Amino acid sequence: MPRLEPYSKELSYSYALGLYPSLSLLETRPETAQRLLLSQDALKDAGGAGKLREKCALLGIREEAADRVLRRESGKDNCFAALVFKKYSCELDKALPHAVLCQISDLGNLGTILRSAVAFGYRDVALIRPCVDPFEPHVIRASMGAGFRLRLKVYDDFAAYRSEFPDRACYPFMLDGARELNDIAPNAPRQHSLIFGNEARGLDASFASVGQSVLIPQSREIDSLNLSVAASIAMYTFSNSRKASL
Amino acid sequence: MPRLEPYSKELSYSYALGLYPSLSLLETRPETAQRLLLSQDALKDAGGAGKLREKCALLGIREEAADRVLRRESGKDNCFAALVFKKYSCELDKALPHAVLCQISDLGNLGTILRSAVAFGYRDVALIRPCVDPFEPHVIRASMGAGFRLRLKVYDDFAAYRSEFPDRACYPFMLDGARELNDIAPNAPRQHSLIFGNEARGLDASFASVGQSVLIPQSREIDSLNLSVAASIAMYTFSNSRKASL
Repeated sequence: MPRLEPYSKELSYSYALGLYPSLSLLETRPETAQRLLLSQDALKDAGGAGKLREKCALLGIREEAADRVLRRESGKDNCFAALVFKKYSCELDKALPHAVLCQISDLGNLGTILRSAVAFGYRDVALIRPCVDPFEPHVIRASMGAGFRLRLKVYDDFAAYRSEFPDRACYPFMLDGARELNDIAPNAPRQHSLIFGNEARGLDASFASVGQSVLIPQSREIDSLNLSVAASIAMYTFSNSRKASL
Repeated sequence: MPRLEPYSKELSYSYALGLYPSLSLLETRPETAQRLLLSQDALKDAGGAGKLREKCALLGIREEAADRVLRRESGKDNCFAALVFKKYSCELDKALPHAVLCQISDLGNLGTILRSAVAFGYRDVALIRPCVDPFEPHVIRASMGAGFRLRLKVYDDFAAYRSEFPDRACYPFMLDGARELNDIAPNAPRQHSLIFGNEARGLDASFASVGQSVLIPQSREIDSLNLSVAASIAMYTFSNSRKASL
């Protein structure tokens, strides 16, 4: 077996660290799983990691002791299992609602948003560069493996995304958005895109002309909501309005 | 001036790290501010830290160069300013809605929730032990100083909170909650408490008898929402229903 490298964007593989993310991978993208890494403790103990080892055995995925790699990639001493998997690419489904994240820069925020996207039925997520790497092990861990259930695609800029999907209703979320979330969500068509900006800067003013700009009403005493909170509230409210209108 | 200690729960003071949290402190609780810490760079440059230095001068708060303390407390090289402030205590307002966080364990989650609490008009927040220390500099930083705008009180257990406020409508949020968020929020009285459990375990089953248990509808493919996302969606929806019914 080739030596496992410290994770970097250039590698053809990544690490699903932890039990829950590993099980999510096996459930959704088993064909990408390559090697099961276990700590000495997990190898001795039939408990927590048992189910994962069983599934891997059935799929013919080889297991190996890799304490050092687990510690290195997680930065922690309590990561007992991980799957090495081959990176994959996806195309977005144009018939379904999208979430579009422009220049997102925080690993934890991205993971949390991917978890909420699965929760609220946004299966298709576009990332606009520059952005964090969605295959980063810490993103996967923050998403609890939810990212594996999504179709994720990275675009060089918003224009590239827009030219692939020219006919959708776009809803850029802005602090000076023209309409309030609860007024807009009930009338959105199914083929829509919720668009969010960078943590520090938000979306620039040009996005107001991309579609119907939306505001989440909030006290002026804070600068803004946390990005993962704002995106989650938006997806929740849109998905809930969709259900209510069925 | 006495030497500044590394932050610990036992100290009588804490640190508001960064420009925005420091300005929030001066706006809301100026009487607690004791010393302004600046990096050599901030002392030389009249730019970013200028407004903060001006305000401190007006209030008679002494400034000092403290690169080492700033680096130590922030864990980063790019923290240019901080205020040392005296810890304070608050009582909750029984006439207003409360958020109750039981055994919250993540600094970032608490900070994010406090930011959302200000955003959505939950000025009174109860923390049930064991919980992270709300004066921890990293909580304050994650809240962007929003915590200073709140009345925060820590209770030994939920019973202690409940006995101080026996007559409120309680809404424990649970994965097996009996009613859905959007059905419940519109009919909530003003004096209510939204109750959230620990990140990993949620609320235990006994909370179902404390009040009307509530569920945020979500796909079964994820284990749960991130706690700060769940609490923020709940506060947003309740506050929005309140406004709609005015």
